[in-house]
Amino acid sequence: MSSINFKIVLYTLGMLLLFNGAFMLLPIFASYYYNESITLELTLSFIVTIFLGLIIMFSTQNHDKNIAQREGYLIVTLGWIFMALTGMFPYFFTKMIPEFSNAFFETMSGYTTTGASILNDIEAMPKSILLWRSLTHWIGGMGIIVLTVAILPLFGIGGMQLFNAEAPGPGADKLKPRIADTAKRLWLIYFVYTLAETILLKLAGMGYFDAVNHALSTLSTGGFSTKNESLAFWNDSPMIQYIIIVFMFLAGTNFVMSYFAFKLDFKKIWKNEEFRWFLFFVVGFSTITAVLVFFQADLSTNPIMHPLVYGALESSIRHSLFQVLAVVTTTGFVTSDFTLWTPFLTILFFGLFFLGGSAGSTSGGVKVVRHLILIKNGFQEFRRVLHPNAILPVRYKGKSVDQKIVFTIQGFFILYALSFIIGAVVLAATGLDFETAIGGAASSLGNVGPAFGKLSPVDNFSSLSNFGKIWCSFLMLLGRLELFTVLIIFSPYFWRNR
Amino acid sequence: MSSINFKIVLYTLGMLLLFNGAFMLLPIFASYYYNESITLELTLSFIVTIFLGLIIMFSTQNHDKNIAQREGYLIVTLGWIFMALTGMFPYFFTKMIPEFSNAFFETMSGYTTTGASILNDIEAMPKSILLWRSLTHWIGGMGIIVLTVAILPLFGIGGMQLFNAEAPGPGADKLKPRIADTAKRLWLIYFVYTLAETILLKLAGMGYFDAVNHALSTLSTGGFSTKNESLAFWNDSPMIQYIIIVFMFLAGTNFVMSYFAFKLDFKKIWKNEEFRWFLFFVVGFSTITAVLVFFQADLSTNPIMHPLVYGALESSIRHSLFQVLAVVTTTGFVTSDFTLWTPFLTILFFGLFFLGGSAGSTSGGVKVVRHLILIKNGFQEFRRVLHPNAILPVRYKGKSVDQKIVFTIQGFFILYALSFIIGAVVLAATGLDFETAIGGAASSLGNVGPAFGKLSPVDNFSSLSNFGKIWCSFLMLLGRLELFTVLIIFSPYFWRNR
Ligand SMILES: [K+]
Ligand SMILES: [K+]
Repeated sequence: MSSINFKIVLYTLGMLLLFNGAFMLLPIFASYYYNESITLELTLSFIVTIFLGLIIMFSTQNHDKNIAQREGYLIVTLGWIFMALTGMFPYFFTKMIPEFSNAFFETMSGYTTTGASILNDIEAMPKSILLWRSLTHWIGGMGIIVLTVAILPLFGIGGMQLFNAEAPGPGADKLKPRIADTAKRLWLIYFVYTLAETILLKLAGMGYFDAVNHALSTLSTGGFSTKNESLAFWNDSPMIQYIIIVFMFLAGTNFVMSYFAFKLDFKKIWKNEEFRWFLFFVVGFSTITAVLVFFQADLSTNPIMHPLVYGALESSIRHSLFQVLAVVTTTGFVTSDFTLWTPFLTILFFGLFFLGGSAGSTSGGVKVVRHLILIKNGFQEFRRVLHPNAILPVRYKGKSVDQKIVFTIQGFFILYALSFIIGAVVLAATGLDFETAIGGAASSLGNVGPAFGKLSPVDNFSSLSNFGKIWCSFLMLLGRLELFTVLIIFSPYFWRNR
Repeated sequence: MSSINFKIVLYTLGMLLLFNGAFMLLPIFASYYYNESITLELTLSFIVTIFLGLIIMFSTQNHDKNIAQREGYLIVTLGWIFMALTGMFPYFFTKMIPEFSNAFFETMSGYTTTGASILNDIEAMPKSILLWRSLTHWIGGMGIIVLTVAILPLFGIGGMQLFNAEAPGPGADKLKPRIADTAKRLWLIYFVYTLAETILLKLAGMGYFDAVNHALSTLSTGGFSTKNESLAFWNDSPMIQYIIIVFMFLAGTNFVMSYFAFKLDFKKIWKNEEFRWFLFFVVGFSTITAVLVFFQADLSTNPIMHPLVYGALESSIRHSLFQVLAVVTTTGFVTSDFTLWTPFLTILFFGLFFLGGSAGSTSGGVKVVRHLILIKNGFQEFRRVLHPNAILPVRYKGKSVDQKIVFTIQGFFILYALSFIIGAVVLAATGLDFETAIGGAASSLGNVGPAFGKLSPVDNFSSLSNFGKIWCSFLMLLGRLELFTVLIIFSPYFWRNR
């Protein structure tokens, strides 16, 4: 290592802009197809983005091919920021979201698959704009797949080496092709799932446009909807909600499991410890929630309508399953305001904001595997206290886990807790009350979307101050990129020439 | 090791009861002196406690002298529980607190130096009962000193080996006398401080009775007061509050620092890293708070009266310093309702609930030294990510800290976070709202006393359900005994014969 190879960083960022620009063709087609009057403005967004990308690439064409860790961190963090900045063009040029803080919040919430919104009337937006909004989720989800499969394990960050037994070891030469191969396969699964969900939603009675958008939002665990009421708009269509339930579950599962499923290798799925626990958590928490919603909650006081299509029991089970999955997988869709069910469920859901889905999925949060390792290590710690000299490693998937990995996972968890507390304190400084500040920080950091208090599932983030919006955007980025990737750039040590 | 030596455990618990009983002589004298009609009932408490202690000791007289770690854990945890159970006699027999859950809460809150109360009218209680209440704090504080100086470092729990550069290494034979010696010296400091504070408070205008009680409550970082309004009763006597400020600071400082101070070795105090940071945190947070209270908060809307004895600036500084110290040292005295100052300060104080004072003091919470090690390790973690093969230990007090110790401190922090979340979820299940449940769990676990929402500094814990009171008592014990000591007893591994 010596100085940072900025040229290759910029060159890669330029390529990302071309990629982002290419996706803008879709809203252009949509605007043309639906006869919306913003085709020209969207085309301008496309041209400016592509042009910027080309300028950056041309001016850094003669770059050195050397790339190391530090360049990787810069590419990832700046990549997300560049995507968010250029992703604002469709909102800006069409004047649909004219203020910087609002547009930046909306794109960052998109690319980080958070799904929190500042739009007060979503349904008043042109379809092309809504499609672009959903696409920012989907692009972000693709980024997350490549990040968790290819980049984080190489960095050795936050114990993400563990996410996949199939992940390549440090075999240097054979590494790169194999990683690219894995990423491509998972992208294919991502694409096929999106297509499948679109078709199924259409068959269940959704319009094509809504079906496409919700499929893009589900697989990326994003959560943007085309309706002001989110999925509660379809509270009279249980089938639509069950389809979303299934795909939220798939989106929160390690995509490698889906790969095994396609190869009909179900034994391998069942043998996966994280999968079993993820399933157990979802089923367990949904059951507790369903029992409480059925016996204690009064859905008729919820501002959202809850027609009892198949009776009260089915309704309780469906909304519980839906909201538990929406929060655990960090999708954030809404069919019911879980903050109004019972006081206990409010806190339980607050706790679930920290669970997260499986590693190797598009979900955010702390992730099940990290909790598993920490819990296992916790039990071992008691034994270690009683036998200070015994060597008692944590076992995961039948192997002992290197102490170093446990150590970085502990570090991740502590940094997550610290980011949450500082996040909440800063939000409170903008004047938010206790519940709103704490919920808003947890939701932004975990990329969930809805939160608590004045940011509840039936509210949105438009009431935040400009600074509050930028701060939440920062928390989203921080959480989405697994903390270290972003924070390391703020370390003076990072910038020292070595 | 083979089976647990229960006899010696019981024998030691019996001795503790004698000790507890002996302290009951003081309220008996008080009752006699103040001509209260409960002298007989208090004497009965004394007799029953002593009698129980003697029975236990006689029946386990022929115990084996072998004592190891597991016996130690049992003695500590059961010790606190036995003290709390027999400490209820004065409340029971005098019928001053007749219900089990209330009396148990009050004694556990006493011995754990938490200071949360279920009494709605403190001033209506006989003086002898109030003295007993304050004494439970003081006895608890003595327990904590011996725990942190003598027992925890031996156990190697939660990284408490670090608390004191003077702490004895594992030199087996020389160990015991030296530890007993240190404990005795620190008890002497504790006693001298209590005496000094009593005299100073009396000189500043407090009555003798109130002075004694508040001195007992301050040095133990307990927080029980003899007034319904706590220290806000003396809001027109700044001098009294400044004296309490000084002694809260001393109580939250490692008592070994005071030992150095008595030997006029100030250089050693200044060289102590934890002390410097503790001072920095107190000064820093007080300054932030004072600025905000002065410019933003409106003390006239606070239900507590705030006469401006020396003007608004002095009042802001005094109340800020007082409340920051009350929370950071986990004393929990109240001169102003900090939950009503500004939304930002509400969250900041919530964050301070997790800071804690210095190790080797009577304060609760996570403690400054643990935060220091975690923060230092966090910075090193960034370097480690950039240089995976370099050995980069955490340095504390000029020495590298064993990775194992950092590991157990991380484990402690995670267990603390988990206990807090489960604590809050269970409290919410008893029907508490978000803010109250979260605040109540943080306050109980950190042994602070006042909390948020319906458990704010001007409320008390009497509104909790019976189960809620027992649960909070459990959290107090858990936090006070540094988690592991209590939880290890629930581990099946602990009970296995080896
Ligand atoms: K989301
Ligand atoms: K206290």
